[in-house]
Amino acid sequence: MPNLVTSKQLQPVLQQIENDFDCAIERLQAFLQIPSISTDPEYKSEVRRCAEYITEDLQSIGLDATMHDTIGHPMVVATDDSAGPNAPRVLYYGHYDVQPVEPLEEWEVPPFDGAVVDGPRGKRFLARGAADDKGQLMTFVEAIRAWKHVHGSLPVRVVILLEGEEECGSESLAPFLTEHKNDLQADTCIVCDTGMWDEDTPAITSRLRGLVYIEATLHGPSHDLHSGGYGGAVVNPANALSKILGQLHDDDGRIQIDGFYDDVAEVSAEQVTQWNALGDADALTMESSGAKATFGEKGFGTLERLWSRPTCDVNGLFAGYTGEGAKTVIGAKATAKISCRLVAHQKPEQIEKALFAFLEARTPPGCRWDLKSFGAAPAIAVPTESPWLTAASNALTSVFPNPTVLIGTGGSIPVVGEFQEILGVDTVMVGFSLDDDLIHAPNEKFEVSCFHRGILSQAAILEVYANITP
Amino acid sequence: MPNLVTSKQLQPVLQQIENDFDCAIERLQAFLQIPSISTDPEYKSEVRRCAEYITEDLQSIGLDATMHDTIGHPMVVATDDSAGPNAPRVLYYGHYDVQPVEPLEEWEVPPFDGAVVDGPRGKRFLARGAADDKGQLMTFVEAIRAWKHVHGSLPVRVVILLEGEEECGSESLAPFLTEHKNDLQADTCIVCDTGMWDEDTPAITSRLRGLVYIEATLHGPSHDLHSGGYGGAVVNPANALSKILGQLHDDDGRIQIDGFYDDVAEVSAEQVTQWNALGDADALTMESSGAKATFGEKGFGTLERLWSRPTCDVNGLFAGYTGEGAKTVIGAKATAKISCRLVAHQKPEQIEKALFAFLEARTPPGCRWDLKSFGAAPAIAVPTESPWLTAASNALTSVFPNPTVLIGTGGSIPVVGEFQEILGVDTVMVGFSLDDDLIHAPNEKFEVSCFHRGILSQAAILEVYANITP
Repeated sequence: MPNLVTSKQLQPVLQQIENDFDCAIERLQAFLQIPSISTDPEYKSEVRRCAEYITEDLQSIGLDATMHDTIGHPMVVATDDSAGPNAPRVLYYGHYDVQPVEPLEEWEVPPFDGAVVDGPRGKRFLARGAADDKGQLMTFVEAIRAWKHVHGSLPVRVVILLEGEEECGSESLAPFLTEHKNDLQADTCIVCDTGMWDEDTPAITSRLRGLVYIEATLHGPSHDLHSGGYGGAVVNPANALSKILGQLHDDDGRIQIDGFYDDVAEVSAEQVTQWNALGDADALTMESSGAKATFGEKGFGTLERLWSRPTCDVNGLFAGYTGEGAKTVIGAKATAKISCRLVAHQKPEQIEKALFAFLEARTPPGCRWDLKSFGAAPAIAVPTESPWLTAASNALTSVFPNPTVLIGTGGSIPVVGEFQEILGVDTVMVGFSLDDDLIHAPNEKFEVSCFHRGILSQAAILEVYANITP
Repeated sequence: MPNLVTSKQLQPVLQQIENDFDCAIERLQAFLQIPSISTDPEYKSEVRRCAEYITEDLQSIGLDATMHDTIGHPMVVATDDSAGPNAPRVLYYGHYDVQPVEPLEEWEVPPFDGAVVDGPRGKRFLARGAADDKGQLMTFVEAIRAWKHVHGSLPVRVVILLEGEEECGSESLAPFLTEHKNDLQADTCIVCDTGMWDEDTPAITSRLRGLVYIEATLHGPSHDLHSGGYGGAVVNPANALSKILGQLHDDDGRIQIDGFYDDVAEVSAEQVTQWNALGDADALTMESSGAKATFGEKGFGTLERLWSRPTCDVNGLFAGYTGEGAKTVIGAKATAKISCRLVAHQKPEQIEKALFAFLEARTPPGCRWDLKSFGAAPAIAVPTESPWLTAASNALTSVFPNPTVLIGTGGSIPVVGEFQEILGVDTVMVGFSLDDDLIHAPNEKFEVSCFHRGILSQAAILEVYANITP
């Protein structure tokens, strides 16, 4: 492996990253202060403001950056061809939108203050979007900024695509990729929205789960009823919904939706052995989740369940009276938000249909469902033998104390599938978040040290990618 | 049956009720405009203001009325001994507190405007508390007001007790009854918080169900988790709670809590026949609830289930993300508000304990419960052979087109049990609400015609009660 740190081109860039790091922190703080919650229509103008902010920042680096309107939230595209027509072209992806912040009262600081606070591993960003994904996408933005500052040009051609709908279903993504297919052509792609194995062990993610997300509302009586006057006489939708959701899993944690496992491939014993060698996944999961036990489908270890087995989770549940104290009411309706994490070869549309059928088949007398679809994406398995993946792996190893490992992730990054399908480009998933970053939860954080090493890693990747002939 | 309407004492009172009826409507409207929501600590001062309002109104009639502070909301007691020491003493009970109003957006008018609007049966009060219980308690207040206005005195001795905690567990009631036992002594009691069979058929309620109400929160991980990063690895409390609640009933609607039916008495075939003769309860239930079917424990008719069978209902349910759109989260906890309606001989404390044990026995690995008790009250069966009940029944029959019927009710009125136990007085439950009054729901209403006939009925009861020797 080349000693990247002593490379003549790279070394001054790494030095510039060190010199400018305090400003990089301030830039990320300002970025985090924009509440770009894409799932909530009330924040539409803030999402747009966030897109404008990052577009201007990319322009200030010297990139050709444009904000594109969509039917949803804007896309930001920035290019730099200073490396000349024969240099490899690298597509970078990140998303500037963030999750909602509820329950707000559980945050230690306001989620959009862009706070930097002390933690057990040094300073950390404590804000919604810190790790998912503003802090992560800024690793490649800062690396590119430093390289441009030092050399006036980049060693590879670059196209950056920043999305504002990752957290709300990416409705505009496929049409946008199709429409801008030519401008977005690249030899390889880096998606920066995944995690490391631990703070000293960088990781490249080669397996992603897919996702189906629905909302199901069971309607019974036409209005809320007094539980004394009607209890026992008509269907209580909250009772009925609980009974139906309770049937989603059998006592071994196996999902009871018809045909759910039909396309699920078994993972090789060798793969399982590799994963088991990574460390004590049960202990890590309990530590980062605060759960007192691991739990799930019988017969599979925790990493197997997370990376190679599908799930069905109730993500939201509400019915009847949800305020303080007691109200003796039978609610007219009961709602569940339900998602399935999918693994390779499961077909999202089929699974969604089967989930709807599961619910419909259990409709109580006189009731009806209101079923909404919130998007579907297949699982992904990326090729692990590509030169891009190997080079990126070496670059990460040069920055971190431990060598890079190949892992899966339980989450979904639909864009990786869209890039494969529409642009014909394979992705290398490089990310710098940690399992305890509280992504999607109150007190989301991103370690300043991860941000720092992430920027250095992205600079090293620019160096090694320049030497690959596509 | 005496023709009450031609009684020399009663006739001018009935005339005064007619003359003053527009003012009676305005008084009830003003009473309804005070948001006396006792379940929500934020409304504490409004509950107090409501107690002050009704105390002053009772004083203005010429009663000796006092507001008493408690550890919860105030009690209002008013007495009138103008009938002399040998007259029967009648205790009247009502409650001036009301239920919460959520979901607010479903109300046709603001719930505390005290609106009177047109409906299919003429004018109606459309407000929280219209039927439960402000409109109802004002029937005896207005009857007493008219009688005092015409005669300067009442035909019986009267003690009125108005509670402000009926909707939130009546915490102060038993201590208050014990402390004021002597002042509250009475020969009979009228509780005005129940319904009629239909708008032309008055009813006296002789069976009430009891109540146990709890809140159960299942805690899993220490914080909300990303459903991709943790789905399948740890317990999802929303999944687990659904599975547990889904086990509360078997497929025949029989409750699975250990020992739940041990003390439940069978109802005689004769009683069931009487109830069935009242009318098409299924059709009435569907019409008033808007449910497209009736539903419940197998082997029992709808009135049997409502009046003589216990229930277990989820009254509130919340977990994870409950906002608009999708959030891929595993919530750290999931909460259910659960109540059981009880029938005669079931012991509330035992049932609550058994319900807690049901939940505890199903605690998933690494999880824990936070279990709260929101009060418990036994069911009541009142003696149907008393002269008070017969006289009240006759009085109602004299006012309405149809004769009075004896019914049960699915709801709970804990005060009836407390009166029996602490004061040693039996209650006659006379009420004027209708099944479609939307009690506890948005758009609660009370027909102006029910209010009108209710006042006339209460005046007639004063007349017939004067002739009973206790």
